[in-house]
Amino acid sequence: MGTKYGNLVETLVTIDLERPAWEQEGLHNRWHPEIPCYKKMKQNKAYKIECYDWTGGQVGNNDSADDIKYCDLTKIHYLSGPFEVEGAEKGDVLVVEIQDVQPLERQPWGYCGIFAKENGGGFLDKHYPKAAKAVFDFEGIHCSSRHIPGVRFAGLVHPGIIGTAPSHEILAEWTRRETELVESNPDADFVMANLPTEQNAYAGACGLELQSKLAQGGRTIPGRPENGGNCDIKNLSRGSKVYLPVNVDGAKLSVGDLHFSQGDGEISFCGAIEMSGSITLKCSVLKKGMFKLNMKSPMYLPGPVENHYGPGRYLTFEGFSVDEDGKQLCLDTTVAYRQTCLRVIEYLRRYGYNDYQIYLLLSCAPIQGHIAGIVDVPNSCTTIGLPMDIFEFDISPEKDVVKRDLGNCAFANDDLEKGFPLHGELPNFLLDNITK
Amino acid sequence: MGTKYGNLVETLVTIDLERPAWEQEGLHNRWHPEIPCYKKMKQNKAYKIECYDWTGGQVGNNDSADDIKYCDLTKIHYLSGPFEVEGAEKGDVLVVEIQDVQPLERQPWGYCGIFAKENGGGFLDKHYPKAAKAVFDFEGIHCSSRHIPGVRFAGLVHPGIIGTAPSHEILAEWTRRETELVESNPDADFVMANLPTEQNAYAGACGLELQSKLAQGGRTIPGRPENGGNCDIKNLSRGSKVYLPVNVDGAKLSVGDLHFSQGDGEISFCGAIEMSGSITLKCSVLKKGMFKLNMKSPMYLPGPVENHYGPGRYLTFEGFSVDEDGKQLCLDTTVAYRQTCLRVIEYLRRYGYNDYQIYLLLSCAPIQGHIAGIVDVPNSCTTIGLPMDIFEFDISPEKDVVKRDLGNCAFANDDLEKGFPLHGELPNFLLDNITK
Amino acid sequence: MGTKYGNLVETLVTIDLERPAWEQEGLHNRWHPEIPCYKKMKQNKAYKIECYDWTGGQVGNNDSADDIKYCDLTKIHYLSGPFEVEGAEKGDVLVVEIQDVQPLERQPWGYCGIFAKENGGGFLDKHYPKAAKAVFDFEGIHCSSRHIPGVRFAGLVHPGIIGTAPSHEILAEWTRRETELVESNPDADFVMANLPTEQNAYAGACGLELQSKLAQGGRTIPGRPENGGNCDIKNLSRGSKVYLPVNVDGAKLSVGDLHFSQGDGEISFCGAIEMSGSITLKCSVLKKGMFKLNMKSPMYLPGPVENHYGPGRYLTFEGFSVDEDGKQLCLDTTVAYRQTCLRVIEYLRRYGYNDYQIYLLLSCAPIQGHIAGIVDVPNSCTTIGLPMDIFEFDISPEKDVVKRDLGNCAFANDDLEKGFPLHGELPNFLLDNITK
Amino acid sequence: MGTKYGNLVETLVTIDLERPAWEQEGLHNRWHPEIPCYKKMKQNKAYKIECYDWTGGQVGNNDSADDIKYCDLTKIHYLSGPFEVEGAEKGDVLVVEIQDVQPLERQPWGYCGIFAKENGGGFLDKHYPKAAKAVFDFEGIHCSSRHIPGVRFAGLVHPGIIGTAPSHEILAEWTRRETELVESNPDADFVMANLPTEQNAYAGACGLELQSKLAQGGRTIPGRPENGGNCDIKNLSRGSKVYLPVNVDGAKLSVGDLHFSQGDGEISFCGAIEMSGSITLKCSVLKKGMFKLNMKSPMYLPGPVENHYGPGRYLTFEGFSVDEDGKQLCLDTTVAYRQTCLRVIEYLRRYGYNDYQIYLLLSCAPIQGHIAGIVDVPNSCTTIGLPMDIFEFDISPEKDVVKRDLGNCAFANDDLEKGFPLHGELPNFLLDNITK
Repeated sequence: MGTKYGNLVETLVTIDLERPAWEQEGLHNRWHPEIPCYKKMKQNKAYKIECYDWTGGQVGNNDSADDIKYCDLTKIHYLSGPFEVEGAEKGDVLVVEIQDVQPLERQPWGYCGIFAKENGGGFLDKHYPKAAKAVFDFEGIHCSSRHIPGVRFAGLVHPGIIGTAPSHEILAEWTRRETELVESNPDADFVMANLPTEQNAYAGACGLELQSKLAQGGRTIPGRPENGGNCDIKNLSRGSKVYLPVNVDGAKLSVGDLHFSQGDGEISFCGAIEMSGSITLKCSVLKKGMFKLNMKSPMYLPGPVENHYGPGRYLTFEGFSVDEDGKQLCLDTTVAYRQTCLRVIEYLRRYGYNDYQIYLLLSCAPIQGHIAGIVDVPNSCTTIGLPMDIFEFDISPEKDVVKRDLGNCAFANDDLEKGFPLHGELPNFLLDNITK
Repeated sequence: MGTKYGNLVETLVTIDLERPAWEQEGLHNRWHPEIPCYKKMKQNKAYKIECYDWTGGQVGNNDSADDIKYCDLTKIHYLSGPFEVEGAEKGDVLVVEIQDVQPLERQPWGYCGIFAKENGGGFLDKHYPKAAKAVFDFEGIHCSSRHIPGVRFAGLVHPGIIGTAPSHEILAEWTRRETELVESNPDADFVMANLPTEQNAYAGACGLELQSKLAQGGRTIPGRPENGGNCDIKNLSRGSKVYLPVNVDGAKLSVGDLHFSQGDGEISFCGAIEMSGSITLKCSVLKKGMFKLNMKSPMYLPGPVENHYGPGRYLTFEGFSVDEDGKQLCLDTTVAYRQTCLRVIEYLRRYGYNDYQIYLLLSCAPIQGHIAGIVDVPNSCTTIGLPMDIFEFDISPEKDVVKRDLGNCAFANDDLEKGFPLHGELPNFLLDNITK
Repeated sequence: MGTKYGNLVETLVTIDLERPAWEQEGLHNRWHPEIPCYKKMKQNKAYKIECYDWTGGQVGNNDSADDIKYCDLTKIHYLSGPFEVEGAEKGDVLVVEIQDVQPLERQPWGYCGIFAKENGGGFLDKHYPKAAKAVFDFEGIHCSSRHIPGVRFAGLVHPGIIGTAPSHEILAEWTRRETELVESNPDADFVMANLPTEQNAYAGACGLELQSKLAQGGRTIPGRPENGGNCDIKNLSRGSKVYLPVNVDGAKLSVGDLHFSQGDGEISFCGAIEMSGSITLKCSVLKKGMFKLNMKSPMYLPGPVENHYGPGRYLTFEGFSVDEDGKQLCLDTTVAYRQTCLRVIEYLRRYGYNDYQIYLLLSCAPIQGHIAGIVDVPNSCTTIGLPMDIFEFDISPEKDVVKRDLGNCAFANDDLEKGFPLHGELPNFLLDNITK
Repeated sequence: MGTKYGNLVETLVTIDLERPAWEQEGLHNRWHPEIPCYKKMKQNKAYKIECYDWTGGQVGNNDSADDIKYCDLTKIHYLSGPFEVEGAEKGDVLVVEIQDVQPLERQPWGYCGIFAKENGGGFLDKHYPKAAKAVFDFEGIHCSSRHIPGVRFAGLVHPGIIGTAPSHEILAEWTRRETELVESNPDADFVMANLPTEQNAYAGACGLELQSKLAQGGRTIPGRPENGGNCDIKNLSRGSKVYLPVNVDGAKLSVGDLHFSQGDGEISFCGAIEMSGSITLKCSVLKKGMFKLNMKSPMYLPGPVENHYGPGRYLTFEGFSVDEDGKQLCLDTTVAYRQTCLRVIEYLRRYGYNDYQIYLLLSCAPIQGHIAGIVDVPNSCTTIGLPMDIFEFDISPEKDVVKRDLGNCAFANDDLEKGFPLHGELPNFLLDNITK
């Protein structure tokens, strides 16, 4: 027998957009086994969880990238949770079904950002060192941006971060291997790993004792095989099911960093369309699942609903492991993927976008980033499929290019004052042919 | 007004399967601007071209991997061509529409091989150093293998190699950067790049003078941004259109290395289902296209026909840039993809396959290899989507595992005599539960 | 420059679930050009509109179909609107982009009903004359029902009704042709058309004069070429764009009858999963569009997001225009489609469902109903593709059938007391093999 | 152990294109249980079967529709077979996997025809009574026609006819019900059913006794529930599996009427792109399958490879059961689908096609014909989704129409001499605006 209003879904965390994340309950920004569970979940019962945008409110809906440029990375990511899942024990596998992900109706916008090279950087920071931002307005399932006009697409909404708590042993291993990386590269000109720090570590209303332990907590920036975390998988969207290792009793599930849309790779680091939103999920437990599934890393089943462009509607670019200085790398897929990104930028630049706009777009539009060939020494080959239908004009190669006035993304004020190159070289026939 | 039989397609190259490739006209195995064009193509006219399997007939339909183990890599790849495209000039872009790709009706089988670590190796050669082979029989659009039973799938048939001739300048640049790579890694324990060699260089009935020049010809193993070549893109299949730089007048198009099916990455090097077959294609030219498209690397549009499994039918595995010894790499996507491969092997091993069988399967089945996150230092995250419908039994995580007798792939005889480990550790509950 | 909370979407109609539809503003249940516009819409601006379930609250979340059996059809459908679209004039085409459709968070359930033969009936009412009901609970994008266990699927949420007001001339033409139909079939044993009636005609707080005119208003049950209306097109879902004729100045758009999911045909009349919900939409106007597009009937572009099962996952049934008594009809596609429905019922019956459960399921699950052949006299051939992935057990033909305890749908109490056949004949091997 | 050339597929029937079908072995054009099996098939073994075009060579590659106008329908369809399937007994279900379907390499063209109203007619023969033809050239997976320029698409190649032999009882039932239909409609102005006739009945080199029995054989024009036959299902393509009733021992499978492409409905009767070609198939038997599957009509599983346009790339038209004279029909889906066809014709006519060209195109292009709503009395609603990507110009509603010179299809010479209307009314702005 039903009830008049049906099975209303219980909300476990509600965000107050008027206050920053670091003043609110049910949020935390480190991985640590001792962060107390904020609430309990029954198995096979749906819950709704609101999540703050990953920065906890540091970035605004405006036309300057100052907030991106000076964003404090020790404060991120603010995750909702942790939640104790009834019946989950160490060694089990937690099955989380993502039933829905939505932007908050009371804040229908998000943003995609390029972090400055000296503050986090991104996949192309050598080429594009300055901070930039594009604000996206949501209209139902679609989004568009005043900072990257001419483009509009449906979001494949998903959580950037979903993970379970690490055990103490796992936490120690993370610190060991990441510290080793940093220490063995003393001359790196960028931050290779964000090591534990007490600065701005936050775990709600935890007591003093825990606060000091949080200094050892794992940073939330990388995804890791032991607990999932910040995997930024665009297809882990509505209806998908993710299988996570349970490292401590109760699983201690945390979730956050919701994305309205993202391309494979989340190229510009803050490359997804970051938003505050809500996720509805339901957990169950596969007893002794880590053993039975031979699990060393999470896996998932995509949901039955997906953006759909048709294979013939992806203009696809190829990149190889030869860098922009002509240096031959051996099967370096990261270099190949960076080159593929640059090929797209060079191509789209002709329509009137500046490179930073495209870099942002590459990060948040539902591009398909495939590893095409990874064995033909010395070249890796990667491809990026760009859905042509997201553009309001025809970008097919046979079509004549008309350079348009396509505005600009947001930059930091001091960068604009000093000036910097907005894009690489362009064929002359286009420079002579600006339509505005 | 038509003719009774319509516009029959002209065949430019016909392969004689009774003779090895190195005795036949219209084949060559190096990239060099001076290889004379074998035949001419008109624009916008379809031609059919038969292609030998990449080894030129070195590998047979049998149950031993001796032929793989001792395959002579200086002999590969035998490409059909080159073809002069009427009207193509240096600086243009050659548009090749792939109208069809088929196995030869007179040889309806192909193979997928793992090369021994000391002879080419593959993406997982540290883990799986021995040679192995699986022969696939073709039944219409499907294929299956006596060496990997329980699996059957439709091929996404495509050419592994399609490319134009390099100019002399490009050829010199290839040699420069690849030699630099080899020379700056004197201690590498594998072949980082296959440098030019006269040994077994072949260009049909070319005269003596050319033969000595072929010694400088580019090897066909890697794909390269300047001319495409061995890109091994599984989606460059029937109906797709590829845009290639024209580096010399006439374009000098070559094609070969046809694959019945391949997964993203062609993981085991000879990982696609290699076959002799025919390709039907049609060329046109975009005048000054390299300039107009800002082209530094090929691109393509996939065709309208594709294997189709539905997003919810891909069981998807995640891998990170932490290697199997716990070493943390910084955004090393190659390591992340290798770890993802290992996760699939560990998972499928439970059903009764040995690791080499899965390694082969990973290479040739239409897996989806995505770059998921590439900016969250220090971890790259890659995913492999494994289509569950290619298995004759249910591999979903919730389903109990029954270990089956799933036979074996082919190995080299001397390897079998000496013995070597066939797979990594397996949960005990499975070892106790072998059903054969 | 943005605002902190972005462009909040204005809500034009809010439903009070505590009160029936016939006491609320902004709702009406007849098509008539003189119903005053409830609110105005600007072009290219998004609005959110809440819609009552089609019956205006007559059906409850319970285990009896009494409410379906005695549902008062003179009261349906309660539509939200009409809305005046700024700038729309007679002869234009109204372009409505459906930006989102959602169930109400405060009522996460819906229902699918079979109407009794004497009260509306349905496509199979000769075979299944009794009233029945299945209540579905919504969990994010998925739904499931305690009345049809073993099935779960993602909804392709859409409005059953979207249309513009008719002109007086169109209204007269509707009455003429539908009256002619009824009068020329005096012996029909079912209601062939619902003619205008004043009974329960409702248009909000309209005055007395209008109330008497409403007696001439068009009933909302059929879709019609002149204004769209109740087309029940399952793919007119999120992200799609519908092109509607504008028959009166201002267009007077109305929308309602939201469906969480429906199969092609909405087979059981109340066959979709009916719900109260909200729709977000945005209008624009194509001036003189009816002339320019040669429009005599609406058309639409489906959205980019769709449920996705993969063609190979549809078990597809065929039906022909030979009825169940062996009578040959000539190209009667309606009979062919009815036979196809019966084929699915006979097939699924073997698993333990009774026929009424399957009839409900056929109506609301995302089946694909295609016209396969319509010219080979005397037989039409239609197909129904049943997505196999919506079942929790394997329904493929090769798999052995195990009859399960799959519960029951809701029926009317007086029907249950008198008793009636629940399903047609079943193979004996199944009758002997009930597992409960 | 394999063989050098692998498992070559045995060819059971080879067509001689130099001779008409009615002089060749292995072909027949009636359904009858006593037609002797031409060859035997083992279970689970692949065979290749060549099939003549459905008319057996009556139609040519030329620019006149005389051959269509005077095509002798008593001669069709020429099927290949019948084949005895080893082990199949009455009551079993024959599972036929369609492994491949291809045009003949030696005849790479096909045609789509409109039959004259007095000779077979078609779905719109009241509107378009004259014969017409379009010849299509095949280029790999694509086809295009000099008679309908501006369109190009990939074929979803399939057999129009696949079926088993009827038993004597079934044959008698066919004759009974189809005769009853004809006799109870003495005033029909078209042929409602093609009853048995000895004229041109053909069953290869059968003796005199059988020839007289063939006079009672079932005509091949309609598909029928008891044996499948001419179902014209466009998705019964490569990789699909069809389940057919076995009515006589050995099954006696026949196949033919191969189509390069067809839209849902095969609207113009000879509406698919008819071709001579080959089909590769493999049979197995489900013992007592008719009983176990409760089978009264065939069913099938589509293959994993399908043309792919993306839901958002289908411009979709709606039609209702109100005919072109304003007459209201009650749930007449056939009328609704005919109206939907007319809507597409009116729309595409604006670009410069004449109506007969579009009628042909509607029949052969991969349109999606759905039954949208079939229960809202009195209107059925059907939709046709037209893939926009098959046109070489942009047909979206927002785009300005430029009328083009799009040539003409083939007509019969005597029709051209007398003259007849080529299309319905067109908006004046287009008539003034012819670009040629």
